[in-house]
Amino acid sequence: MSNTPEVNVVLGRNQYGKAENHVVRVTKDGDRHSIEDVTVISQLHGDFDSAHYDGNNEHVVPTDTQKNTVFAFAREGIGSPEDYLLRLGQHFVDDFAWVTGGRWGARQVVWERIAVDGEGHDHSFFRGGSGGETRTAVVKLAENGAAKHVISGLQDLAVLKTTESGFVGYPKDQYTTLQETTDRILATNVTARWLYNTTDIDFNATYESVKRILLETFTNHYSRALQETQYLMGKAVLEAHPEIDEVKFSMPNLHHFVVDLEPFGLDNPNVVFWAAHSPYGLIEGTIRRESLGDTDKLWDGVPAFV
Amino acid sequence: MSNTPEVNVVLGRNQYGKAENHVVRVTKDGDRHSIEDVTVISQLHGDFDSAHYDGNNEHVVPTDTQKNTVFAFAREGIGSPEDYLLRLGQHFVDDFAWVTGGRWGARQVVWERIAVDGEGHDHSFFRGGSGGETRTAVVKLAENGAAKHVISGLQDLAVLKTTESGFVGYPKDQYTTLQETTDRILATNVTARWLYNTTDIDFNATYESVKRILLETFTNHYSRALQETQYLMGKAVLEAHPEIDEVKFSMPNLHHFVVDLEPFGLDNPNVVFWAAHSPYGLIEGTIRRESLGDTDKLWDGVPAFV
Amino acid sequence: MSNTPEVNVVLGRNQYGKAENHVVRVTKDGDRHSIEDVTVISQLHGDFDSAHYDGNNEHVVPTDTQKNTVFAFAREGIGSPEDYLLRLGQHFVDDFAWVTGGRWGARQVVWERIAVDGEGHDHSFFRGGSGGETRTAVVKLAENGAAKHVISGLQDLAVLKTTESGFVGYPKDQYTTLQETTDRILATNVTARWLYNTTDIDFNATYESVKRILLETFTNHYSRALQETQYLMGKAVLEAHPEIDEVKFSMPNLHHFVVDLEPFGLDNPNVVFWAAHSPYGLIEGTIRRESLGDTDKLWDGVPAFV
Amino acid sequence: MSNTPEVNVVLGRNQYGKAENHVVRVTKDGDRHSIEDVTVISQLHGDFDSAHYDGNNEHVVPTDTQKNTVFAFAREGIGSPEDYLLRLGQHFVDDFAWVTGGRWGARQVVWERIAVDGEGHDHSFFRGGSGGETRTAVVKLAENGAAKHVISGLQDLAVLKTTESGFVGYPKDQYTTLQETTDRILATNVTARWLYNTTDIDFNATYESVKRILLETFTNHYSRALQETQYLMGKAVLEAHPEIDEVKFSMPNLHHFVVDLEPFGLDNPNVVFWAAHSPYGLIEGTIRRESLGDTDKLWDGVPAFV
Repeated sequence: MSNTPEVNVVLGRNQYGKAENHVVRVTKDGDRHSIEDVTVISQLHGDFDSAHYDGNNEHVVPTDTQKNTVFAFAREGIGSPEDYLLRLGQHFVDDFAWVTGGRWGARQVVWERIAVDGEGHDHSFFRGGSGGETRTAVVKLAENGAAKHVISGLQDLAVLKTTESGFVGYPKDQYTTLQETTDRILATNVTARWLYNTTDIDFNATYESVKRILLETFTNHYSRALQETQYLMGKAVLEAHPEIDEVKFSMPNLHHFVVDLEPFGLDNPNVVFWAAHSPYGLIEGTIRRESLGDTDKLWDGVPAFV
Repeated sequence: MSNTPEVNVVLGRNQYGKAENHVVRVTKDGDRHSIEDVTVISQLHGDFDSAHYDGNNEHVVPTDTQKNTVFAFAREGIGSPEDYLLRLGQHFVDDFAWVTGGRWGARQVVWERIAVDGEGHDHSFFRGGSGGETRTAVVKLAENGAAKHVISGLQDLAVLKTTESGFVGYPKDQYTTLQETTDRILATNVTARWLYNTTDIDFNATYESVKRILLETFTNHYSRALQETQYLMGKAVLEAHPEIDEVKFSMPNLHHFVVDLEPFGLDNPNVVFWAAHSPYGLIEGTIRRESLGDTDKLWDGVPAFV
Repeated sequence: MSNTPEVNVVLGRNQYGKAENHVVRVTKDGDRHSIEDVTVISQLHGDFDSAHYDGNNEHVVPTDTQKNTVFAFAREGIGSPEDYLLRLGQHFVDDFAWVTGGRWGARQVVWERIAVDGEGHDHSFFRGGSGGETRTAVVKLAENGAAKHVISGLQDLAVLKTTESGFVGYPKDQYTTLQETTDRILATNVTARWLYNTTDIDFNATYESVKRILLETFTNHYSRALQETQYLMGKAVLEAHPEIDEVKFSMPNLHHFVVDLEPFGLDNPNVVFWAAHSPYGLIEGTIRRESLGDTDKLWDGVPAFV
Repeated sequence: MSNTPEVNVVLGRNQYGKAENHVVRVTKDGDRHSIEDVTVISQLHGDFDSAHYDGNNEHVVPTDTQKNTVFAFAREGIGSPEDYLLRLGQHFVDDFAWVTGGRWGARQVVWERIAVDGEGHDHSFFRGGSGGETRTAVVKLAENGAAKHVISGLQDLAVLKTTESGFVGYPKDQYTTLQETTDRILATNVTARWLYNTTDIDFNATYESVKRILLETFTNHYSRALQETQYLMGKAVLEAHPEIDEVKFSMPNLHHFVVDLEPFGLDNPNVVFWAAHSPYGLIEGTIRRESLGDTDKLWDGVPAFV
């Protein structure tokens, strides 16, 4: 069988690599240990045409090799997921002429010291990171490493406010049955991703700061729409962090319905709620610096939303 | 079609009810709000034979009614999942002559106050509960409520120690390839359930105490086998809590393999690990008071293990 | 630290082993290949006290060895998951004096031949098994293998009937709001497990027969309650299969609510439904031969329901 | 608090709507019923700036209204998920001046008739669709409906070939340990999405045809790389379907490792495999007509890959 491409069918954008490399790196400062726990994906971009067209693998750095490299590079330590991925990516574009770039991603989970007699233990940990969210990082390299971009984020930071939220003034049509309210529960799982304009930064400290800003801004205003709250959250991040140019959010509106207890002879002054699983609202938006150019290409292949 | 049972086919043990009733109860002490978030299952035991044999529903308290009751009872507040389920269960055995007992269960998630300027906010929360575990409670009633039993627990409390664990001295046969080690990572997600000998107790405080004991005991010894660690964890709970008679554990041994970096010219002094997804070890055991009688019936229908 | 048990704290029931051993066995009859795909758990019962009490592993057949054995035994072929597990279990009770029994389980997925020009291909397959269900098998050995029991089953066989189902005549109380109906959708995911009274049987053929009976019985009557339908399904299995003594079911009642389209000027003669995710009804029951003794011990540790 | 945007922070791309609307539509042709089962997401594009900037909802068609519309439009029937979503989308751009477009998506599951006495039953069904895949459809409208695009697809079509696959000739570096092979299992879960160049088509028939081509092409060649197989699959679709312009794939390489049975005195001529869960290879690519222009914008917000 000849795999020579037909005149009118060609290979378009493509990438390949190894997913779900779960690396645990222990650092031992004498008896005092610490843990970095990242699950890494490596995806290469470049000239792999002959593999697709002709089953010729001479450019195909095996996904198994990518996996080995991920683990070998952890020997030097992680530091931050972003820095670690930048080192990994640079290696691939440096060592293989036909690898022009790629996408490297990580999810990080946090381990906290178990308290014994009020002190954090030297080598025993529990899965921590209050909020239950997962930290994410994506590094994208292009132009043989001349272009580097970092997109950090968090997934599923669950937040809820029991009041100071309403929804009124919306348009009505023949399909509208929703009643207006000036006092409701607002609950969402924040998934956010932010684009840095630098790679020279303390990514760990910035992550903690962004997370704190998201939590505080969710809290500090009466929400007239989840859209407004999302915008304020993104704006606060950009105002505090000049090294961030753009924030993208995906935030479900997790409906908490006031249960009608009247049939049972009971009132319900907004105290008993049914937390519905589905359907749910979904509010996705981008908040960015006005001066920023088109960044759409940078978000390609990032699990973003809009 | 006649559904009269054949002489030799009969209905055995059965139960029915409504699952996944997700109740969020907000308590408002002026501007200071608090949240209780429980997902409840109600399952009735009793005489429902005619529904099975003849499609006669005169004894079938609808699952929809059970759901309504779950929400209505939340109007009075939750308190603890155990107390709430005890009240619920008592209602069903009291109000329906043919309902002799049942099983009521709950999962609880914890919401913590978002810190603003160092203070926990009045009405804004994030999903907390360090450790990521889910609290569980099961209440079982029998004999029209004369017999009441409470089994509390937690699921998936992830813990890990980077040293002070080994595995040696095991039997070898023709299928053995494992190497002995005196220094390994020990990691597990603790799922535990404990049987109380009373219903008159501060269930919330006891939960926190048991969780703390589990964490501390996981930490405070060199583990020669996950079996030993599990036993010590259960023993410590029973020694500290005379109101608990029995603890059951299901603990995966989540293997963290030292990555062989020699092919890449690197050493690996127990610092770079591959956290394998599967297969995994699974250690399940019961630790109980020696004087305790047969409790097997009490664990029926509880998602227990052994 | 001495791990000698306190006078009043002892080890109760326990088991341990390796979970999620995913074995794919290819049988090559010349160019004609076939696939058996099973995910196996091995759990040993016996005298492991010293590991729990004293961290002495001399009885602890490593879970790694159990894994190796699972794969090695696949060299001879699988045949049926039940037969394979029986061979595995017999090995452990035969070869280790202190292993008195255990529990071995498997989930099986089916691969069907891809049709090319109307013929099933020799070596290309897709994940098949119409219905999407997972086949399950559990083998339990006790008394050093003198007692052998097999419990087979299936999980999540999704079925739905668009009519010939109703729910009337149920008791009403102050929490009842449900309306009676004589025409509704009945939908469930059947999870069933059945206890054999023999190990000398064609397990594959019986599985197919039981599945067919479950589907046909779900279909062939007006359902006055899911309880009735469940009973009829179990009864039909027992009537057709004398080698089966008992069937246990867990069947959610997956509510399909008729959507009220009146606000939009539309009727809805039972044609547009909202398939709600949760809460859902849950009907669990046992259908068994009247002459059968107490089998509760046989179901210990099986993911059963009631 | 003023939400007036700072001079340099603005709203970028955004969308909102209702997710996970699970619609079951029954069509009753006398006693002969049929089922369409789709889970729909509706997301609107347009001018919603004032909601984000000022909490002014006068343009915010409630997500609840979108949900109601989804169910109301099902009254007319579904037909195909693509046609249904096109009707839905057109409604929103027609009825709301500021809604310029949007994204509407659906997952469809198939119900097949239960066979009774060899005949498909009138109103009883099981979850079918051999292969276990989920059918997907996305409709995108822009320019007030002047631009319409349809992207159909399938998720997780599991396929496996037991031979006729190898991997040789790849580059080696210091991190390479993989051995070459000319006979391996090739297994993947195909996720594919294809872009139509028309909306006037029998979407259901085309779906079945594309699925058949994907299965047959996976089968009909010796695979020298998963990249080659993926390219051939896409090429075959484009050659058979002039109404399709582009296909995107995400295909994990699900490793089936030959188990080393030598330590146990057994050979293993490629018959016993460990199906590893992770890490896994991931091969993502686009196959398209050479004449096709830049379609990147059309794929925005579609869960695509590269």
